[in-house]
Amino acid sequence: MNRKMVFYTTGQILLLNALLLMLPLVVSFLYADGCWLPFLLTALISAALGGVLQLTCKPVSNDYYAKEGFVITALAWLTLSLVGALPFFLSRQIPSYVDAFFETVSGFTTTGASILTDVEAMSKSLLFWRSFTHWVGGMGILVLLVAVLPTVSGRTIHVLRAEMPGPTMGKLRPRLSDTAKILYLIYVVMTVIEIILLLFGGMPLFDSIVHSFGSAGTGGFGIKADSIAGYSNYCQWVITVFMFLFGVNFNLYFMLLIGRFRPALKSDELRAYVGIALTAMLLISVNIYPMYHNLADTLRLSAFQVSSIMTTTGYSTVNFDAWPDFSRTILIILMFIGASAGSTGGGLKVSRVVLLLRTVRREFQHMLHPRSIGSVKFEGKPVENATLVSVSTYFGLYMAIFALMLLLVSLEPDFDFTSNFSAVAACFNNIGPGLGLVGPALSYTNYSDFSKLVLSFGMLLGRLELYPILFLLNPSTWTKK
Amino acid sequence: MNRKMVFYTTGQILLLNALLLMLPLVVSFLYADGCWLPFLLTALISAALGGVLQLTCKPVSNDYYAKEGFVITALAWLTLSLVGALPFFLSRQIPSYVDAFFETVSGFTTTGASILTDVEAMSKSLLFWRSFTHWVGGMGILVLLVAVLPTVSGRTIHVLRAEMPGPTMGKLRPRLSDTAKILYLIYVVMTVIEIILLLFGGMPLFDSIVHSFGSAGTGGFGIKADSIAGYSNYCQWVITVFMFLFGVNFNLYFMLLIGRFRPALKSDELRAYVGIALTAMLLISVNIYPMYHNLADTLRLSAFQVSSIMTTTGYSTVNFDAWPDFSRTILIILMFIGASAGSTGGGLKVSRVVLLLRTVRREFQHMLHPRSIGSVKFEGKPVENATLVSVSTYFGLYMAIFALMLLLVSLEPDFDFTSNFSAVAACFNNIGPGLGLVGPALSYTNYSDFSKLVLSFGMLLGRLELYPILFLLNPSTWTKK
Repeated sequence: MNRKMVFYTTGQILLLNALLLMLPLVVSFLYADGCWLPFLLTALISAALGGVLQLTCKPVSNDYYAKEGFVITALAWLTLSLVGALPFFLSRQIPSYVDAFFETVSGFTTTGASILTDVEAMSKSLLFWRSFTHWVGGMGILVLLVAVLPTVSGRTIHVLRAEMPGPTMGKLRPRLSDTAKILYLIYVVMTVIEIILLLFGGMPLFDSIVHSFGSAGTGGFGIKADSIAGYSNYCQWVITVFMFLFGVNFNLYFMLLIGRFRPALKSDELRAYVGIALTAMLLISVNIYPMYHNLADTLRLSAFQVSSIMTTTGYSTVNFDAWPDFSRTILIILMFIGASAGSTGGGLKVSRVVLLLRTVRREFQHMLHPRSIGSVKFEGKPVENATLVSVSTYFGLYMAIFALMLLLVSLEPDFDFTSNFSAVAACFNNIGPGLGLVGPALSYTNYSDFSKLVLSFGMLLGRLELYPILFLLNPSTWTKK
Repeated sequence: MNRKMVFYTTGQILLLNALLLMLPLVVSFLYADGCWLPFLLTALISAALGGVLQLTCKPVSNDYYAKEGFVITALAWLTLSLVGALPFFLSRQIPSYVDAFFETVSGFTTTGASILTDVEAMSKSLLFWRSFTHWVGGMGILVLLVAVLPTVSGRTIHVLRAEMPGPTMGKLRPRLSDTAKILYLIYVVMTVIEIILLLFGGMPLFDSIVHSFGSAGTGGFGIKADSIAGYSNYCQWVITVFMFLFGVNFNLYFMLLIGRFRPALKSDELRAYVGIALTAMLLISVNIYPMYHNLADTLRLSAFQVSSIMTTTGYSTVNFDAWPDFSRTILIILMFIGASAGSTGGGLKVSRVVLLLRTVRREFQHMLHPRSIGSVKFEGKPVENATLVSVSTYFGLYMAIFALMLLLVSLEPDFDFTSNFSAVAACFNNIGPGLGLVGPALSYTNYSDFSKLVLSFGMLLGRLELYPILFLLNPSTWTKK
């Protein structure tokens, strides 16, 4: 393993992080909320650490392979969360470092699970930083690094592959730094449009920015105790639509950008994504209509919650934990399905579910006609057997890790099965709020430090799609060769 | 599709069923419990129906393939359950036919979920029939048919394959009827040994027979309100050990029988099965020790419940729903893992879990060294890629059906998520008792008819490993060709 390369890149990430911290620093000065010192200190620590790594770990060779790609990604995210937690901790607005770490991991992984019990008491700059981590984490910190810096190496694809969610990572342009730039460009433009539309609906500037960060990254951190419920119906609909849009594969936006409308709109994954969302919305609407007796309200609440949970954002406009069990079960199933591959959303990803169901269909046909060798097609192309094994295996590994985390969290004395199950599901799938004691009206604050750390690792595992973290934790990865 | 063949074989099953019904008829006379008429009527109906099918559907060709094998299996089990429910219904001891059907499906599929609220009020002959369905369903009704009748066709393997649990069905002998005979012989001998050992411990004859049926089929129907809790510690240990033994792949017993000790004891699945059970037992013992303050009691309770849940039997000696959440979560995970392939137990099967984890390990190595082509080995032999796809796909299909059933059951107004989740898990995995409102101290009686039917199909899906029932329900299966 090219250790120097790994640490060198981690250093670059820390330097980039120091730059990013300038933004909340400015916000702190603008609102004069007295939090500039924690940000400045953190930026200095981050820069110093990054500088030391850059100087001491100048790599001899520029080569790196899949292994290095995974480890760089895992290490970058872990380091970023450890350092990113400092402003909360140093400002004493989150007195426990474990809590601050949980909150920051939750931010970068775009989970949106919070340990705060009174979010409205927080300083503006900290709230800004908290939501900004969503925005950076959504598209990915390494994608940002590649977009900003001159190409580090010809093999950057390994890093991007490890960070971009979904079973496939398409190369939009021959040069990867171009791909990264295009992705961020689409991302920035869409975020800005959302901010403008929210401003247009009368939402204050700060709130518009923060909520646009939260929906762009499909994160879900809000700044009000009742999340989005207090804003106008217009604003709720804007956020509903944008959460949904950020859950679409970004490759499709690129295709639209270069005028390839038909293949973009005929995408298998897009159709399944829209189909599942509409079905869920309809079923929930029918189920909850007796609670509201009003079609417009019912549709708005149902659409918002479905869009929020399926894209794994986690905003809420109603305490959906009080909905009937049928609707709650639909939401739990959506938590697992998740958004599209190549989007900022989490979960298993629609494309994996589609591929899995198609593999089942082929198995079925193979049983009927043992001599037939049917192929599984996706997005118009036949899928290799090796990819199918990977997808199904991912599914199994995912469930195995889920069971292990559930077991560890069940050591908590004061939580019931529903709460624990949905807490693990909500963190692992990067959603945020769960049901029961971790429902949308409550927070994760009462879990023990041990469970908070387990759930934090769960968020990282989910965001980076299991393997990078497993490689990081596997001692044999670190052997010289 | 060879429809005549399908209906002809179903006719044979019904005739066999009429014969089987003679046993509870005799029990009814012995105990003079006044239930002889329902059994006689049911036997006559079964024989008449079977006779009609035999006469009208004499197959032109003896050929049948995988499709017919699946459909025969599914239809046989469904018909058997529909007819087998009649004694409960006709005797009016279970006044609702849906309830009687649920109870019978639960019997044949060796689930052991019950709608009875006062089991001790039932007539002896009905209790006997109820437990006898476990025994027949455990090894399989079609295996019994093949063992009893002269070989129906050279292609019987398709039927046995569809009925025997697990990803692989080994041919013990060149002639399949010999294989079936050997399996039933081992089964009978082990059941008789258990009866004798229980009698030796002072358990009454009727109780010994019924509980041996329940543990041999890994079913779980008891005859006492407190399941096995009222019997001596010796009897509890006997049942613990036998449940565990019936969860072992029967191929291994055959190997022991012909003196091949070493390969039998070196079996990958056996080692994993023992390892998982011991680990679970140990963890639960540590977790519940503070509740009992007595090492012997703790070990006995823990061992019994682990053996019962992992083999998907479902007997209990304690209300494990009152255990701490950690132990309950372990039991839920064991529900999904299940027993060994080729045993009478249900669940996903240990061999599938082992294969899945090994595939993950290979994926892992492939990511590290993209050029390596590692193979997955199981029981000393390399496993084909197609089998790995099947196993992983099975896993995914399993979860998808689980989610669908959970959704349908969640339409119930009065049950919570924990109860519904564990009800579906307990029925789908053929265990019986769940947690919460369907915990070991309670019954399924309060579910609606709709949910009872959903859960009944869940039990059939689980026992027959998904595909037969899916083929039965798929209209295209029934087209002429």
